[in-house]
Amino acid sequence: MQVTGGRIRPNVGDPSVLYYLDDLTVGQRFVSPTHELDAAQIKAYAAQFDPQPFHLDEDAARGTFFGGLAASGWHVASITMKLLVAGGAPIAGGVIGGGGEIAWPKPTRPGDVLHVESEVLEIAPSRSKPNRGMVTVRSETLNQKGEIVQVITIKLVVFRRPEGAIAEHAP
Amino acid sequence: MQVTGGRIRPNVGDPSVLYYLDDLTVGQRFVSPTHELDAAQIKAYAAQFDPQPFHLDEDAARGTFFGGLAASGWHVASITMKLLVAGGAPIAGGVIGGGGEIAWPKPTRPGDVLHVESEVLEIAPSRSKPNRGMVTVRSETLNQKGEIVQVITIKLVVFRRPEGAIAEHAP
Repeated sequence: MQVTGGRIRPNVGDPSVLYYLDDLTVGQRFVSPTHELDAAQIKAYAAQFDPQPFHLDEDAARGTFFGGLAASGWHVASITMKLLVAGGAPIAGGVIGGGGEIAWPKPTRPGDVLHVESEVLEIAPSRSKPNRGMVTVRSETLNQKGEIVQVITIKLVVFRRPEGAIAEHAP
Repeated sequence: MQVTGGRIRPNVGDPSVLYYLDDLTVGQRFVSPTHELDAAQIKAYAAQFDPQPFHLDEDAARGTFFGGLAASGWHVASITMKLLVAGGAPIAGGVIGGGGEIAWPKPTRPGDVLHVESEVLEIAPSRSKPNRGMVTVRSETLNQKGEIVQVITIKLVVFRRPEGAIAEHAP
């Protein structure tokens, strides 16, 4: 959903509401759907990409820095991307990131229900490519207790509405 | 392998060579094993975490920003983590990141053979927790042409060698 000036308008899962550069404003906020994480998902991701004891096995995790099974930070980043694509960042042309900052202030645990809240921080039209701009978005990934488990501040490539295109978003 | 003062010592895949905080020095470099990426892996990751046309289908990707099938940036980050755990960052106690910066200067394509080259940028012993420190590492992910497809600068939690522990690394 989009939160604007205290009003909440749902846009989750509505593929007809997609934002071009022209539609975005600094301070605009988007909220993603949710994702429920379990131990099996944590271990499956870890086996493929981050096979360390604290991501693979409850018993082995107990004596580590994490004090129990925790998701790989890159798994949390991957789920965050899934939630952004699923409605958390409804950008026409897709969610295309060039880079940014990432932090994991708290571990993500089995049973956590995650969602992403994003805010447009900056909009910079491209000088050399008039059909696009760079939009800086801060996306917080929160668990069911409202605790922030990840923060990313990412620069996205966002396109202007093509001339003659039917508006996909009615502001 | 570890590159020190012009000498190259292999440490890839040798689990007996693990570095505690005491063993690390600024400027120290590590090189990971390689990972060969193909279209099937790109699509499988995308289907799970980043289901956008330019990561899912060659034909659909052609008319997009990427001009062809490209791996999700978070897939490249996940493979990078796999390569760090597989010998690219041989840290005793594991590769535990608190956050940092990430950039994807070039797309990663089917057929790319990736490896990671890392350098220790900064070592900061903890003031409050004498058994550990924060180590800033810059890790470049390169393809078979030597092009940098991802750069991360990450702060890792690294532990001191426990008193009485047998040295896992002979400097």
